[in-house]
Amino acid sequence: MPKIVDHEKQRSIVAAAAIRVIRDNGLEHATVRTIAKEAGLSVGSMRHYFATQAELFAFCMNLFAERVKQRVEALQMSGTVLENMKNLLLQFLPLDEDRKMEMEVWFSFSAKVLMYPELKKLSDQMHNGMYLSAQLVIQELREHGMAHPDLDAEIETEKLYALVDGLAIHTLMQPERLSVQRMEQVIEQHLIMLCQP
Amino acid sequence: MPKIVDHEKQRSIVAAAAIRVIRDNGLEHATVRTIAKEAGLSVGSMRHYFATQAELFAFCMNLFAERVKQRVEALQMSGTVLENMKNLLLQFLPLDEDRKMEMEVWFSFSAKVLMYPELKKLSDQMHNGMYLSAQLVIQELREHGMAHPDLDAEIETEKLYALVDGLAIHTLMQPERLSVQRMEQVIEQHLIMLCQP
Repeated sequence: MPKIVDHEKQRSIVAAAAIRVIRDNGLEHATVRTIAKEAGLSVGSMRHYFATQAELFAFCMNLFAERVKQRVEALQMSGTVLENMKNLLLQFLPLDEDRKMEMEVWFSFSAKVLMYPELKKLSDQMHNGMYLSAQLVIQELREHGMAHPDLDAEIETEKLYALVDGLAIHTLMQPERLSVQRMEQVIEQHLIMLCQP
Repeated sequence: MPKIVDHEKQRSIVAAAAIRVIRDNGLEHATVRTIAKEAGLSVGSMRHYFATQAELFAFCMNLFAERVKQRVEALQMSGTVLENMKNLLLQFLPLDEDRKMEMEVWFSFSAKVLMYPELKKLSDQMHNGMYLSAQLVIQELREHGMAHPDLDAEIETEKLYALVDGLAIHTLMQPERLSVQRMEQVIEQHLIMLCQP
């Protein structure tokens, strides 16, 4: 089915072009015209790949969500429980330039979610993924008998989830202040605190 | 100086109109035309109050920052240390409909900060305000001999700051999941954890 393969490949090329435009110029400049130009396609052919702008944006968001999922699934989990849990949480943080770019664009989309219900489902999926990871971390600490016995699992899940997302946003907004190393320290210290006797 | 007063008053009217437009339709629809219409002014007269769109947006952000500042300054601090510190942190969270609207609009602006350096200064000021409040909370807990002795003040400040901002964003994105009451509980539990012996 060469036609279908090409179609999917072309959609990916359009999405990659859209992501570059959004990163460099902001979401409000990501028009069909600018994205078509960046992708080296005619404006007319764009409709062939994405019927609406929202469909294109949803495709991009899904791309990011898949990357995070793949990173999480590829984790080795070969260290101590604390190391493994820290590594899991770090997958949601902009640790390198590629992820920083992904998250900057994701952040632009997120600000649209309040207005565009089409994007809300994808945003919710990513948020649920983060929430479930935070939940898993708390569960693991409990199952290994490491968590403080008085720890309220639901509250701590909510807290860990907010902490990770807050760090991600702070490092995007103020990278000069909050380094990758610092984020790692904060996560590590928090996990240690949850285990304090 | 009635002219100056009128000018400032008109600027506030324009800003209030801009905020309504942004809240209802998103920042990308907040053009001079739509804001002028909402404010009941002619498009031509708008330039008299704000030379550029960025100037108007900066004015709106400053308005929000001032409101938070006023709320913080008006705090009574008449409870226990834990209650007072919790109340301080809650001023940065969308506790009611007005603040929710403010923060939704602020959130729209924040996504622009990566692209528009004019807005970065104001965003940084607000973030510094939040950071300083988190710092004050950790300091107070230490000064009252309540904080855990092994607590790393810098790490805990960074963490508390990320936690508060993460909660604010989560309740805006998923209000059905994260209620005001739940946010309060999370903050309270975190402060108690910082004080655990």
